[in-house]
Amino acid sequence: MAEFDLPLEQLRAYRPDVRRPDDLQAFWDATIEESRALAEPPRTERVETGMTLVDTHDVTFSGFGGHPIRAWAHVPAGASGPLPAVVEFHGYSGGRSLAWQNQVFATAGYVHLTVDSRGQGWKAVGATPDPTADAGLSTEPGVMTKGIADKDTYYYRRLFTDAALAVDAARALPWVDAARVAVTGASQGGGLAIAAGALNHDVVAVATDVPFLCHFERALAISDRDPYGEIVRHLARYRDRVEQTLDVLSYFDGANLAALAQAPALFSVGLRDQTCPPSTVYAAFNHWGGDDKEMAVYRFNDHEGGGEHHVPRKLAFLAQHLR
Amino acid sequence: MAEFDLPLEQLRAYRPDVRRPDDLQAFWDATIEESRALAEPPRTERVETGMTLVDTHDVTFSGFGGHPIRAWAHVPAGASGPLPAVVEFHGYSGGRSLAWQNQVFATAGYVHLTVDSRGQGWKAVGATPDPTADAGLSTEPGVMTKGIADKDTYYYRRLFTDAALAVDAARALPWVDAARVAVTGASQGGGLAIAAGALNHDVVAVATDVPFLCHFERALAISDRDPYGEIVRHLARYRDRVEQTLDVLSYFDGANLAALAQAPALFSVGLRDQTCPPSTVYAAFNHWGGDDKEMAVYRFNDHEGGGEHHVPRKLAFLAQHLR
Amino acid sequence: MAEFDLPLEQLRAYRPDVRRPDDLQAFWDATIEESRALAEPPRTERVETGMTLVDTHDVTFSGFGGHPIRAWAHVPAGASGPLPAVVEFHGYSGGRSLAWQNQVFATAGYVHLTVDSRGQGWKAVGATPDPTADAGLSTEPGVMTKGIADKDTYYYRRLFTDAALAVDAARALPWVDAARVAVTGASQGGGLAIAAGALNHDVVAVATDVPFLCHFERALAISDRDPYGEIVRHLARYRDRVEQTLDVLSYFDGANLAALAQAPALFSVGLRDQTCPPSTVYAAFNHWGGDDKEMAVYRFNDHEGGGEHHVPRKLAFLAQHLR
Amino acid sequence: MAEFDLPLEQLRAYRPDVRRPDDLQAFWDATIEESRALAEPPRTERVETGMTLVDTHDVTFSGFGGHPIRAWAHVPAGASGPLPAVVEFHGYSGGRSLAWQNQVFATAGYVHLTVDSRGQGWKAVGATPDPTADAGLSTEPGVMTKGIADKDTYYYRRLFTDAALAVDAARALPWVDAARVAVTGASQGGGLAIAAGALNHDVVAVATDVPFLCHFERALAISDRDPYGEIVRHLARYRDRVEQTLDVLSYFDGANLAALAQAPALFSVGLRDQTCPPSTVYAAFNHWGGDDKEMAVYRFNDHEGGGEHHVPRKLAFLAQHLR
Amino acid sequence: MAEFDLPLEQLRAYRPDVRRPDDLQAFWDATIEESRALAEPPRTERVETGMTLVDTHDVTFSGFGGHPIRAWAHVPAGASGPLPAVVEFHGYSGGRSLAWQNQVFATAGYVHLTVDSRGQGWKAVGATPDPTADAGLSTEPGVMTKGIADKDTYYYRRLFTDAALAVDAARALPWVDAARVAVTGASQGGGLAIAAGALNHDVVAVATDVPFLCHFERALAISDRDPYGEIVRHLARYRDRVEQTLDVLSYFDGANLAALAQAPALFSVGLRDQTCPPSTVYAAFNHWGGDDKEMAVYRFNDHEGGGEHHVPRKLAFLAQHLR
Amino acid sequence: MAEFDLPLEQLRAYRPDVRRPDDLQAFWDATIEESRALAEPPRTERVETGMTLVDTHDVTFSGFGGHPIRAWAHVPAGASGPLPAVVEFHGYSGGRSLAWQNQVFATAGYVHLTVDSRGQGWKAVGATPDPTADAGLSTEPGVMTKGIADKDTYYYRRLFTDAALAVDAARALPWVDAARVAVTGASQGGGLAIAAGALNHDVVAVATDVPFLCHFERALAISDRDPYGEIVRHLARYRDRVEQTLDVLSYFDGANLAALAQAPALFSVGLRDQTCPPSTVYAAFNHWGGDDKEMAVYRFNDHEGGGEHHVPRKLAFLAQHLR
Repeated sequence: MAEFDLPLEQLRAYRPDVRRPDDLQAFWDATIEESRALAEPPRTERVETGMTLVDTHDVTFSGFGGHPIRAWAHVPAGASGPLPAVVEFHGYSGGRSLAWQNQVFATAGYVHLTVDSRGQGWKAVGATPDPTADAGLSTEPGVMTKGIADKDTYYYRRLFTDAALAVDAARALPWVDAARVAVTGASQGGGLAIAAGALNHDVVAVATDVPFLCHFERALAISDRDPYGEIVRHLARYRDRVEQTLDVLSYFDGANLAALAQAPALFSVGLRDQTCPPSTVYAAFNHWGGDDKEMAVYRFNDHEGGGEHHVPRKLAFLAQHLR
Repeated sequence: MAEFDLPLEQLRAYRPDVRRPDDLQAFWDATIEESRALAEPPRTERVETGMTLVDTHDVTFSGFGGHPIRAWAHVPAGASGPLPAVVEFHGYSGGRSLAWQNQVFATAGYVHLTVDSRGQGWKAVGATPDPTADAGLSTEPGVMTKGIADKDTYYYRRLFTDAALAVDAARALPWVDAARVAVTGASQGGGLAIAAGALNHDVVAVATDVPFLCHFERALAISDRDPYGEIVRHLARYRDRVEQTLDVLSYFDGANLAALAQAPALFSVGLRDQTCPPSTVYAAFNHWGGDDKEMAVYRFNDHEGGGEHHVPRKLAFLAQHLR
Repeated sequence: MAEFDLPLEQLRAYRPDVRRPDDLQAFWDATIEESRALAEPPRTERVETGMTLVDTHDVTFSGFGGHPIRAWAHVPAGASGPLPAVVEFHGYSGGRSLAWQNQVFATAGYVHLTVDSRGQGWKAVGATPDPTADAGLSTEPGVMTKGIADKDTYYYRRLFTDAALAVDAARALPWVDAARVAVTGASQGGGLAIAAGALNHDVVAVATDVPFLCHFERALAISDRDPYGEIVRHLARYRDRVEQTLDVLSYFDGANLAALAQAPALFSVGLRDQTCPPSTVYAAFNHWGGDDKEMAVYRFNDHEGGGEHHVPRKLAFLAQHLR
Repeated sequence: MAEFDLPLEQLRAYRPDVRRPDDLQAFWDATIEESRALAEPPRTERVETGMTLVDTHDVTFSGFGGHPIRAWAHVPAGASGPLPAVVEFHGYSGGRSLAWQNQVFATAGYVHLTVDSRGQGWKAVGATPDPTADAGLSTEPGVMTKGIADKDTYYYRRLFTDAALAVDAARALPWVDAARVAVTGASQGGGLAIAAGALNHDVVAVATDVPFLCHFERALAISDRDPYGEIVRHLARYRDRVEQTLDVLSYFDGANLAALAQAPALFSVGLRDQTCPPSTVYAAFNHWGGDDKEMAVYRFNDHEGGGEHHVPRKLAFLAQHLR
Repeated sequence: MAEFDLPLEQLRAYRPDVRRPDDLQAFWDATIEESRALAEPPRTERVETGMTLVDTHDVTFSGFGGHPIRAWAHVPAGASGPLPAVVEFHGYSGGRSLAWQNQVFATAGYVHLTVDSRGQGWKAVGATPDPTADAGLSTEPGVMTKGIADKDTYYYRRLFTDAALAVDAARALPWVDAARVAVTGASQGGGLAIAAGALNHDVVAVATDVPFLCHFERALAISDRDPYGEIVRHLARYRDRVEQTLDVLSYFDGANLAALAQAPALFSVGLRDQTCPPSTVYAAFNHWGGDDKEMAVYRFNDHEGGGEHHVPRKLAFLAQHLR
Repeated sequence: MAEFDLPLEQLRAYRPDVRRPDDLQAFWDATIEESRALAEPPRTERVETGMTLVDTHDVTFSGFGGHPIRAWAHVPAGASGPLPAVVEFHGYSGGRSLAWQNQVFATAGYVHLTVDSRGQGWKAVGATPDPTADAGLSTEPGVMTKGIADKDTYYYRRLFTDAALAVDAARALPWVDAARVAVTGASQGGGLAIAAGALNHDVVAVATDVPFLCHFERALAISDRDPYGEIVRHLARYRDRVEQTLDVLSYFDGANLAALAQAPALFSVGLRDQTCPPSTVYAAFNHWGGDDKEMAVYRFNDHEGGGEHHVPRKLAFLAQHLR
C-alpha cells in the first residue's frame, strides 16, 4: 500500500474539530452508572490448558445491562500475592480465543484478562453473545450498524460499557493489585482501550495500537476498507440517514473519548494504514486528555502497525507504569 | 462461470438421501402453531408513491413469536372485488424495498404482498428487525449462523415461520380472494417459497427460482460462495460443531421441506449457478411432495437463472393456477 | 470507494474551461437536420406482456440516417386522451429490455418511451443494431471508440441524433401531448438526456442522473473504470492519436452540449462516483444553459447515485413540469 | 493454473462427435467462391522501417466481399528470386502491428505475410475495419457475437474468408514461390490457420498453436475465460437463442473444418490452457483430414503454450515442408 | 474454498506409487553424514525478552555444510534438570521470529527449539542466510527452484539437513533430556518434521500438520497456489526441464521420506486445503514407515487445517510420547 | 490506471533533493576498478538459430568479481567490418531469452549484445546465476532485498557492475566498432542503462525507457507495485532497518547515478506508470549530467510506456549518435 494520508509532519499537528455532542459526558456517565449498578462480582473457574507455567481461569463478569461477558484470566502459575494486571480488548471479528492461546502478558508476569467482544468471534473464537433484542436492529452484516439509528441502541454503547466494566472486574480478581491495572488492544481493541481509559478512571495506563473508531467522519471519507466500509455501505443504501448516523457516531468517536482520558498513553500508528488511517489515529492522540503520551510511528506499515516489533516497546511502557 | 456440477441428465435423476430428522413434521407443526396462536390480524396503511395505477399499503402482520413483520401490499388501483394474490419473498440481503419499487405483479393484475426478511435489508431497503435476544447469538457476519447452535434459536426458524404466516396475512387482506394465493421468490426467496408451500397448505401454487437453503450438505461441499460460505467459515473456525450444525440445518433443508409440500410447483435453475448449485435445486425438486411440478432450465446462467426471460413463464404459470 | 474527487464546496463552483470546437452548433444543426429530413413517422405495434394495467407498443422510429430505432411505448391501460410523456435513455450496455420490464413511468401515469441504444444491449436486452459500415470502424471492444477517428463517423454522433429524434417520435405518438415531453436517463442515459435537451428544444424538462460523457478530458484523467477506460486503453495503444481524439470528443462533450440547453433540469450526482466522477457531472451542471436547475447530491454513493431514493424526487420534478 | 481438463492419455484418443451441419462444405464453397470472384490483385507499397535486413511492404488484398484487408509483407532485403512464404494470422484482439514489429519469419528467410484481423487491433495495432453494416449487428463487446444470429452475417464468416484469400494474395506476391506457402498462427490465429488450410487447398503446411474456435460446445462448457466467455454471456442474456447460436457456430467449428483439411499439420497444446482447453484442441487434431500431423504437448502451460520454445520446432517443421 | 480433492473415504486408502529414486537412502545417508562430520557443538547466549516465566537463548548450531543456523531455545524459567524437548520448523516464508514470540511449548513445560529456515524469513523474522554460492542458482522468486537443476544443489537438500541436525543440536543442549526429543511443524514445517523424522532416528515423535513437499507430481497437478506454483511457473517457462526436475524432486518427496521414518506420528489435514492438497498429505501418511500413526481430519478447513483446535490434541500426543 | 503523480508541468521542473552519499563516486570507482581488474576477454561461440539474416553468438564475459555473465551477440549475417553496437539490458525478471528471440537491433544493422541479469530469468529465459554466497543473504522473494543490509553485499552492486563491464565486452567483440557503442533498456533495463552510462564513459549514447531504480524514497512512497513493493514489504517486516536500508539504496539510486553521466540521452516516460512513477523518472532526467537529453512523454500509458511506438524514435536517436 502506497502512502495515501497526510505527511508525517502534518499528522503530528493534526487536531481537527470533530463533531461532538454537548451531552457526551452525561450520556456516558449515565450509561456506565446504570450498568455498574447491575453488576455482580466476577465469577471464575479454573480450566485445564496443558500450560504448566500459566494458570487459566474462565471469567464471567457483568457488562452492559448486567449481561454476562466472558474472558480468560491468565495468571503466572502459583501466584499468590497481588500482581499488576493488563486488560486486553480485541480487534474487530475476534474474541478471547481458546484458553491456551495468547498468554504473552502472563508469561511476562502480569495477570492478563483477555475479554470477549459480545456478538463477535468469527476470526478468533468467542463465547459471548449480545443478549438483547437490540441486537436484531441490523441491516448490514457485521456489528458496525447494529442499532445505529439511536445512540441508546447502538452496539458500541454496549461494547464500550463492557470494556469499562472489564476494568472493574479485573480489579476485583483475587490475584490482582487493584491499583495497577492497565488496558491495551489493537484496532477495535485499541478503540476499546481508549474508551476504557476515558470511561473508567481506575485505569493507570493505556496502550492503544492502530485504534479503530476514531474520527469517524474522516475515516468514512478516506478509508475504503471494512469495517468502516460497513457504515459507508449502510449510508449508501439508506441515503436518508446520513446526518442522524453521524450524530449517533459522535457519541462513540475515539477522538471525543480521548479528550476525557487522563492516564498515561502509548499510541502506535502505521503510516500506510488504510483500515484505520493515520490521521484518524492522530486525531485521537492529539485530543488525548492526559499530558503523558507518546506515539510509536511505523512508516512502512499498513494496519499491522508495529506488530511484533511493538510488543517489547509496549512491555517497557507497561513495566514503567505497573511495576 | 464454467459448468461445474452434474450434467443435466444426471441432475434430472438426482434424488439424494438428505439428512432428515425424525421429528421434522412435529417440530414445524409445533413451531407454526405456537406463533399462529400469537397472531393478530394484519394492519394496513395506505401510502403515497406517485404511482397512479397501483395503490400501495404498508402492511404489518404477525410473524414468528407474534413479532411485527412489514410488507407492502400493491393493489391494482381502484380494485374492489377479491383478486388473486402473489406473496413474494426476497433474496438474501434484500427487503421489501421502497414503496414505489417492484410493482410488477400488481401491474399484472394481482394483489402483491412483498414481504420483508427480518434483520436483513442491506442490498435492498427493509424495515423489519429481528426483535429477539436470540438475534445476538451470532459469530459470523450475516444471518446464516445466527443462533445455529440449536434448532429452536436458529434464525431460519423465525424466517420460515414469517413466510408461512405471510400467507395467512395475505389471505386476510380485504382485496384478496383467500382461495387464490400463490407464493414466489428467488434464491432465499425461493427457499422461503418452498418453506411456505410446505408449512402452509393454503398455498395454491409455488413458483420458486434458483432456491437457496436446499441440500445443505452438498451445497457446503461444492459452493464456495456466500451465503453458504458463511456456514463454511463458521465450521472452519468452530471445528468442533460440524455434526451438531448439520443436524440443526436438516430441520431447515429445502429438500426435506419440499417433501411436505403438495401444491403445483414451477422451479427454475441455472446450470452454472455456483451460489445455489443445480444439484441442490434438483434435490428439492425431485423430493417435491406434489406431482404437478415443472423445472425451467437455463443452461448458460449462473445465479441470475432465468431472470427477465423467466417472468413471462412464471406469469403464465400463475395465471393457470390463480385465474 | 473512498472520496477521491474535489470536495463538495469546490465541486459546487467547478466550471472548468472545456475544449470546445468553434463549429459545435453548426455541426449539430447540420447533423440533426440531415437525419430529420430522412425521418418517417413512428410505427407502433401492440404487444402482449401479461400486464393488465399497462399497454405496451413496439415502436420503430427513424434515428440517425433514417435508421430504424426500436423502443417500447408503455401506456396506462385504456388511455385515450393526450398524456404527458417521459422519454428514457439507457446506461452503457443496456437496451429497452423485454416488453414487460421497466414500466415505472407508465405506472405513474405517463406515456413512457424507453429507447434502445443502437448496437448495445449486452447487460439488458436490446433489439437495435447500428446498421452502417461505420460500425466496423472499431478497434476496442465496446462502442466508445467506434469510428472515433472522425467526428462524422463517431458512434455517439449517431446515438445522440437517435436521442434527439426520439423526442420527435414521442411527440408524434397518438397518446402523447406533444407539449409535455421530458427526457431522462442515468449514466449514458443521463448523457443522452443532456444531448436530447441540447439538440431538441421541444424537450420541456431534463432529469439526468450521474451523467456519463461529460468533460472527457478530466474523466479520462481521474476515472480508471470503464467505459471511459475504453478510450484510455485506445489512446494507450494508439499513442499517436491523442490530440485528434480529444478534438473529436469535444463535439460530444456533455459540458459543451449542456451550454446549448434551456429546459429546466434536475441533475443527480454520487460524490464517490468513480465511473462518472462528480467533477465531470458538475462541469456539465455548471455550464447548463438554463437557469432553472438543481442538483441532488448523494454523499456516500458511487455510480449508483441516488438510486431508489432519487426516483420519488424525480417524479416530483416531472410532475411539476409535465402536469 | 491446475490441471482441469482430461488427462493426456484420454486427450490423445479424444475424437468427439461435434455438431456438424450437412451443408458445411457447400456453405464454404459458395462463400469462398463468391468473394474470390470479387478479388483484385494485391497492392503493395514499400515502407521505411529502419530495418536494414528486411524490406517491408504495405499490402492491401481483397478479403470477404472484396473488402480491402491490410497486411505487411516482410521480405529478406534484396531478395529477387521466388521464396517460400509464411502467412500468419493473429490472436484475438491483435493485428498486423507496426511495420517494424514481428519480422521473425523474414529473418529466417521467408517472405512473411502478417495479416490484419478486420475490426480487431486493440492489443496490437491494426489498420483494417470491418466495412459492412453487418458489423453493427452486435450486442456484446468484442467480435465473438457480431452477427451471430445467422451464419451469413456472422463475423467469422468474413474473417475465415479473409484468411483463405490471404493465401491467394501471398501466392500472387512478386517475391513468392506460389507452390510453397504455409499458414500459421496461435489462438485465434491458430483457428484461422486451420480455416485457411481447410478452405484453401493451395496451402502446403499448417502450423497451428493452441487454436481457438474449436469444438465450441465443449469450450463453452469448460472455459470460463474470454473470448469464449463473450458467447457464454451472450447466451446467458439472450436465453432464447441457445440452439440457434450453436447451429450457427457449427459452421465455424475448427473441429469440423479440420476434417476438410489435407495439408501436413503441426499442432501445439498447453495442458493447462483454460482459454483454449486441450480437449478442444485435440478435437480438431483428431478430426484433421490429413494423415501427416503431429502434436507438440506442453504440460505445465496455460494459453501461452509452447511459446518461445515452440518456435524452433515450428521453424523445423516449416523448413521440412517449404525448403 | 469448495471441496476439490478426493472424497474422504478414497483419501483414507490413497497410497499412490510415487516416483522414487533407487539411491534415495544412499543419497541422504551420505548427505547427513557429510554435514554431521562438519558439525560443532551448538552455541547459546541468553537474551532478554521481558518474559519472566521463560528463559530464552539464542542458539547457533551447525547445519548443512557446517553452516551456522540460528534458533531460539525457550526454556521454562529456572529449569535445571533435563526436560523433554520439542523442535519446531516453520512454514514457507517464516523464521524463528523475534525472541519473545511463540513460547507456547515452553509455557507447556518443554524446552522449545524453534529453528530458522535458511534464506527465508519474509513473513516472520529470521536471521539465517543460505551462505553458499548455490543460493544464486535461482530463476524464480522464492526458494522452491533454487538450484533445482541438480539434487546436490537443490535448496531443500540443505534445509532438510538443517532439520535433521537441529535434532542433534537440541539433544546437545544442557536443559534437554536427549532421549525425549520430538519434532513438529506445519506446512513446510510439517514437511521438515517428516524429513527430520526420516533422517534422524533419534526423534521419538513426529507431529506434522498439513505438510508441504509431499507427492510433488500430484501437488503440481492439482494445486494452483504458491509455493507449489513456483515450480509450476518454472516448468512453464523452462519447458525443457520437466523430467529432470521431477527426478530431482523425487529425492525430496515427503511421501518417499515418510517411508524411511519409524517414530510415532500425528498428522493433520484440511480437506479443503488447496496449498497442500489432502491427497498429498495422505500419500505421505499412508507411506509412513511406522505403525503408530494417526490422522486428525478437519473437514471445512483450507490450509489453516486444525489451527488452534489442533494444539490441545498435539499437546496430548506429545505428552503421551515425551512425558 | 488514472493519473496519480504530479501534473506534467510540475514533472518537467521536478528536480528533488535525493539522499546522496558523500563517497558515491569513490564507491563506484573502487567497485568497477576491482572487477575490471579480474576481467578476461569475452568468449564467443556461434549458435544455430534458424535465422538466416542474423548470426548469433553465445557470449560469456566477466562481470562483477570476474563472474561469468552470459549474453547473445546478434550480428547482421556476414558482417565483417566494424559495426556500431547496442548493448541491451532487461527488465526485472527477464534474461537474454532464447537465441532466436529479440533480434530487432541486428535486423536494424547493429551488433546487438543482449545481456543476462544474474539470478533473474523467470519471465524470460536466462542462463546466468549469481555465483556468490552473498546471493543467500535474502529474506524476501525476488532480488530487490538480496544483501540489502550493506552496500557491499547488495545485489545491485553486482548487477550494475555487470552492466558497466558489458560495455567493455561489447567493445572487445570482433564485429564491433569500439567507438560507437550505445546502451539501452526498459524498466530495470533502463536503470541499468543509466548505470552503465554513469559508470562506463565509453558509452556514447543512452536510451533509457521508463527506468526503474530511480529516486527510491519517493518510489517507495507512491508506488504500491512490485518490484518496489519487495522493499516496502521488507521494511514493513524489518521495521528496525528503515534508515540503514535507505542509506544503502542511495548508492544505487538512478537519480544520483544520472548526475555522473555525460552521454547524450533519450528518456521515455508513461504518465500513468505506477511501477516506475513519472516523478521518479523525471528525478533522474533532471539530474542527468549531460546537456544533450530529451524526454519522450506518453500520456495515457502505464509501465508499458511508449512501447512499439517508441522504437522508431529510439532507432532514430541511435542512428543520430552511432551512424
